[in-house]
Amino acid sequence: MADPVGTAGRPVVPGSGALRPLGIHEVRLEPGFWADRQRLGGEVIVDHCRAWMTRLAWVGNFRLAAEGRPLSDRRGREFSDSEVYKLLEALCWEAARTGAAPAERGVAELTELVAAAQEPDGYLNTCFGHQGPGVRYSDLEMGHELYCYGHLIQAAVARLRTHGEDELVAVARRAADHVCRQFGPDGRNGICGHPEIETALAELSRATGEERYLEQARLFVERRGRGLLGDHELGQAYFQDDVPVRAARVLRGHAVRALYLASGAVDVAVETGDDELLEAVAEQWRNTVAARTYLTGGMGSRHTGESFGEDFELPPDRAYAETCAGVASVMLAWRLLLATGESHYADAIERTLYNVVAASPAMDGRSFFYANPLQQRVPGYVVDSGAASPHAAAGLRSPWFAVSCCPTNLSRMLASLAGYVATVDEGGLQLQQLAACTVRATLPDGRAVGLRVETGYPWAGAVTVQVEEATGGPWRIALRVPAWADGAVLAYGDLRRRVGPGYAVLERDWRPGDELRLDLPLAPRWTRPDPRVDAVRGCVAAERGPLVYCAESVDQGPAARLDEVAVDASVPPADQGPDGGLGGAMTLRCAARAIPVGDPGKPASSSAGRAADAAVPLTMVPYHLWGNRGPASMRVWLPELPN
Amino acid sequence: MADPVGTAGRPVVPGSGALRPLGIHEVRLEPGFWADRQRLGGEVIVDHCRAWMTRLAWVGNFRLAAEGRPLSDRRGREFSDSEVYKLLEALCWEAARTGAAPAERGVAELTELVAAAQEPDGYLNTCFGHQGPGVRYSDLEMGHELYCYGHLIQAAVARLRTHGEDELVAVARRAADHVCRQFGPDGRNGICGHPEIETALAELSRATGEERYLEQARLFVERRGRGLLGDHELGQAYFQDDVPVRAARVLRGHAVRALYLASGAVDVAVETGDDELLEAVAEQWRNTVAARTYLTGGMGSRHTGESFGEDFELPPDRAYAETCAGVASVMLAWRLLLATGESHYADAIERTLYNVVAASPAMDGRSFFYANPLQQRVPGYVVDSGAASPHAAAGLRSPWFAVSCCPTNLSRMLASLAGYVATVDEGGLQLQQLAACTVRATLPDGRAVGLRVETGYPWAGAVTVQVEEATGGPWRIALRVPAWADGAVLAYGDLRRRVGPGYAVLERDWRPGDELRLDLPLAPRWTRPDPRVDAVRGCVAAERGPLVYCAESVDQGPAARLDEVAVDASVPPADQGPDGGLGGAMTLRCAARAIPVGDPGKPASSSAGRAADAAVPLTMVPYHLWGNRGPASMRVWLPELPN
Repeated sequence: MADPVGTAGRPVVPGSGALRPLGIHEVRLEPGFWADRQRLGGEVIVDHCRAWMTRLAWVGNFRLAAEGRPLSDRRGREFSDSEVYKLLEALCWEAARTGAAPAERGVAELTELVAAAQEPDGYLNTCFGHQGPGVRYSDLEMGHELYCYGHLIQAAVARLRTHGEDELVAVARRAADHVCRQFGPDGRNGICGHPEIETALAELSRATGEERYLEQARLFVERRGRGLLGDHELGQAYFQDDVPVRAARVLRGHAVRALYLASGAVDVAVETGDDELLEAVAEQWRNTVAARTYLTGGMGSRHTGESFGEDFELPPDRAYAETCAGVASVMLAWRLLLATGESHYADAIERTLYNVVAASPAMDGRSFFYANPLQQRVPGYVVDSGAASPHAAAGLRSPWFAVSCCPTNLSRMLASLAGYVATVDEGGLQLQQLAACTVRATLPDGRAVGLRVETGYPWAGAVTVQVEEATGGPWRIALRVPAWADGAVLAYGDLRRRVGPGYAVLERDWRPGDELRLDLPLAPRWTRPDPRVDAVRGCVAAERGPLVYCAESVDQGPAARLDEVAVDASVPPADQGPDGGLGGAMTLRCAARAIPVGDPGKPASSSAGRAADAAVPLTMVPYHLWGNRGPASMRVWLPELPN
Repeated sequence: MADPVGTAGRPVVPGSGALRPLGIHEVRLEPGFWADRQRLGGEVIVDHCRAWMTRLAWVGNFRLAAEGRPLSDRRGREFSDSEVYKLLEALCWEAARTGAAPAERGVAELTELVAAAQEPDGYLNTCFGHQGPGVRYSDLEMGHELYCYGHLIQAAVARLRTHGEDELVAVARRAADHVCRQFGPDGRNGICGHPEIETALAELSRATGEERYLEQARLFVERRGRGLLGDHELGQAYFQDDVPVRAARVLRGHAVRALYLASGAVDVAVETGDDELLEAVAEQWRNTVAARTYLTGGMGSRHTGESFGEDFELPPDRAYAETCAGVASVMLAWRLLLATGESHYADAIERTLYNVVAASPAMDGRSFFYANPLQQRVPGYVVDSGAASPHAAAGLRSPWFAVSCCPTNLSRMLASLAGYVATVDEGGLQLQQLAACTVRATLPDGRAVGLRVETGYPWAGAVTVQVEEATGGPWRIALRVPAWADGAVLAYGDLRRRVGPGYAVLERDWRPGDELRLDLPLAPRWTRPDPRVDAVRGCVAAERGPLVYCAESVDQGPAARLDEVAVDASVPPADQGPDGGLGGAMTLRCAARAIPVGDPGKPASSSAGRAADAAVPLTMVPYHLWGNRGPASMRVWLPELPN
């Protein structure tokens, strides 16, 4: 495959680290779970996003700004520019991935619009622009101007790495130069209320070789946590201005903000050799995963402030677990994986991809979850598809939102997903995600290698890797064995070896045609929560491979009420068979009973007349597919019957 | 005692109903739990509120408005007028209760300020007033103009019932007349985003005999739930504009709004003989108590929208359970009690008074809880006492809030509390709250009766009632026996009778000096939650009499971490003795053990090195007193050790 600008379409290109990522020019997803979703992204979601943003005039805002029209004509929230930029980024990846003319045309058209709105000094914003310098950066806390540049720059970096210099890149360079002038060492000592520009500038520095962008990113990271931002009604932790990044021990406040900031901090740490900063973020990640992360990988337990809660505050029903936090969590874990080579980061990416990112889009790609709760108490309601939903959480997916960060974030993640699948190091190649794909890459020592990965994962547990290209001497193939995969077996020729969590590694003088196979045990299992998570005490959750399952009311008999049922966890759930209505997804079945409810001391009780302890076996479906069959109640964590 | 205007200082005076309330001129609290708090209210809290509102210029806003000064000079949120009115109401009650000159002077001074800001046509608002008619009522959803009138009118009603006509009453009448003109049958078909004026107008109608105020209240109640208000980002349920009042089955949306509206609906139903509406609200109450109310009586489980959650969504840590919702819940339950005579309403009032209303003020009366969670995971932080806290929930009480509805609401409730203690009906007198007090009242048939109630309740279980005045023939004394009081005994002379929950009634030809005694069992007990409340599954809570208890970290040994402990619920908690630092409150003790925590599959765990299953007996304190000894973690619901 082509590597036109030496970066092979990689979403992230650290200057150093344990692992080197392979990009979308090196890894191609082949038909299977993720290729299906990537195709949905390219064929439906991207157009869906553009159509909505055109209709709501978020795209047109750039034309208004170019024409100097008054702000009162503008539509959308103050950060709507960023959605156009995220769509642009998705189109850059799509154009490179497919070579399709419409995506390429989309990049050109949107670039032209955006470029026209840029002011001579590089400033670019449809909400605050063209109103004179006093208005610019008048609300760093909530104005989102630097945040919007961040997404513009990320789109440009994707363009550079998949195509090379063009007008989009030039616009982003001008904007970045403007930021460096305004907020550099001699400029305003400010930061943006919503982090994002930090990682964007560090990446632009990597992609262009311009050191000053990295320095600006470093400045923004270092300035944070020192009270430069004004007071926020939810406290300074809301935008991570409470504690300096290198002094913090856990992620807190607005989850997407926290995760973008941490991503930028890793980028800065890696490029500047700042091991203290890297370890600080790694510790924050560990503590966050251990005590502030849902079973799905979802992050952010509070609707208020879209924020992390305290340790072990993980209510399933009020989980916010924003789709964008899922995307941002993958961005952060990917950076930490590349820096350290530790497989648990790839485990976390897998968990989040299958149970947050994949959960957001409806099967038809035309509506989305913004929040991803683990329990829906009452069936959700249908949001009028003609209007953007003002509600981030409605119990059913919505076609669009008043704040619609998630669909565009999903688009850029799906379009670039092949760039998160494999890595190389001195010794060989690591398959970080067990996805059907082909790989053509160059090892650091210059040897060309090629693999074909065939698998029905996550529905089937066999992953077959065929060597298609290999030259000159031994190298290693490492296949990630997820932490849940107790009893995995690696097979090569006559060899059959039990492999534990981490990487199953085989070093050989590989020849084309060589084949190795990893067999992962996919028997459904019950998972128990940490005893400190009060909200799900006494409950279990079903998992199968990387997938979290849930019980959805539409699958149960009329006797089963999801708030009045408990499962027999002494017997594991069993495969029930693929469900055609859910695209062939494996469903599970488990033994359960109705629980006696109602307290005669309470004035009202719904238990009257209900037989206690009736057997009500439950069907369970993959969590990421819930809510595709109309309004339903749902729960991941199910009370366990006493033994 | 005097009954200057025939309403005896009653907070609510229904035209009909099962019970007739006794007012503050008929019931006087005597030294004890509630008299102490009432004294704190009158001697500290009222002055505290006035000082803060003077310093923050919320009082001065009226002067600015009177002078026609520009809105940009105004301070405080758009509804800050209502806080001045609630303080005015508290001062009216205090002036009548104590006869003290400062309270009477406070009424006069504030009345003069308010009156000067009223416009010639009766319109009165410091935020929207004096800007021309186009600005008035330009934001019915969130402008709070009618809401503010509501509190003005409630203050005036308190004045009418404790003093009689004066300038405050005249101002409120002019405002009410203005509202009737603007929003009457021939006026604008609108309602206020925040209910409150409904109950205020109904009460003003009762207090003045003016039918048109009742008709206006009825119109506001009937118009609601039909989408007259614009869309709200949290949905129309936020301000109860989703379903007509008589069609709703449960309270929903913003809790204070819902409870004020329901209170107004009961007033309208009672005055118009609308039994269907009354029963609709009673059903909403039953369903709300059964599935949307905390053990403390607190209502509102969501920070977002300060709102009710779904049925059984009752997280202890994120409980909002706003103090004002507690006050409003008492207002509603009192109205339903008077209408129906059903004792469970008085039970609910007791639970809410002891565990929400009493929990709000610090022991010194100088800081307040706005939200009343049942679990504090990390020790709260001290809010700078020099500034109004922007945070409704901070884990510690704050002296004042940017939205400071709770301290003034608490003030008016405490000042009028004697008006919620006793009722009469054809047959005699009912003691609804077991508080030390003296009662002088007239039965509906004209006979004068008098009682003295002596009790150390809630710390002691004996309630002694001595007849001090009685003439001519038999009548009944009814003492409420709370639902939790299993094994209560009523004693009179040689008679000793087990009495069940409800009312212990004795009918006699009472003579002065007659004495009866109710003995309530106060042995501490464990309470288990409804099994459908997921958030506290497997937990128990300690209660003693009407008091909910909690474990607070400051009382425990260094080995006890409240998120890593479980109690032995096979043995009831035991009285440990009075605590001098908590005003002599009884503390409890229970057996508990550290629980093993930490999952080796997780990257980080705090369990390393901690011995599992160590005995860590817990001390528990009354919930209403928590947070008086500095930052602390706290929990009401404690995990139960497996048997």
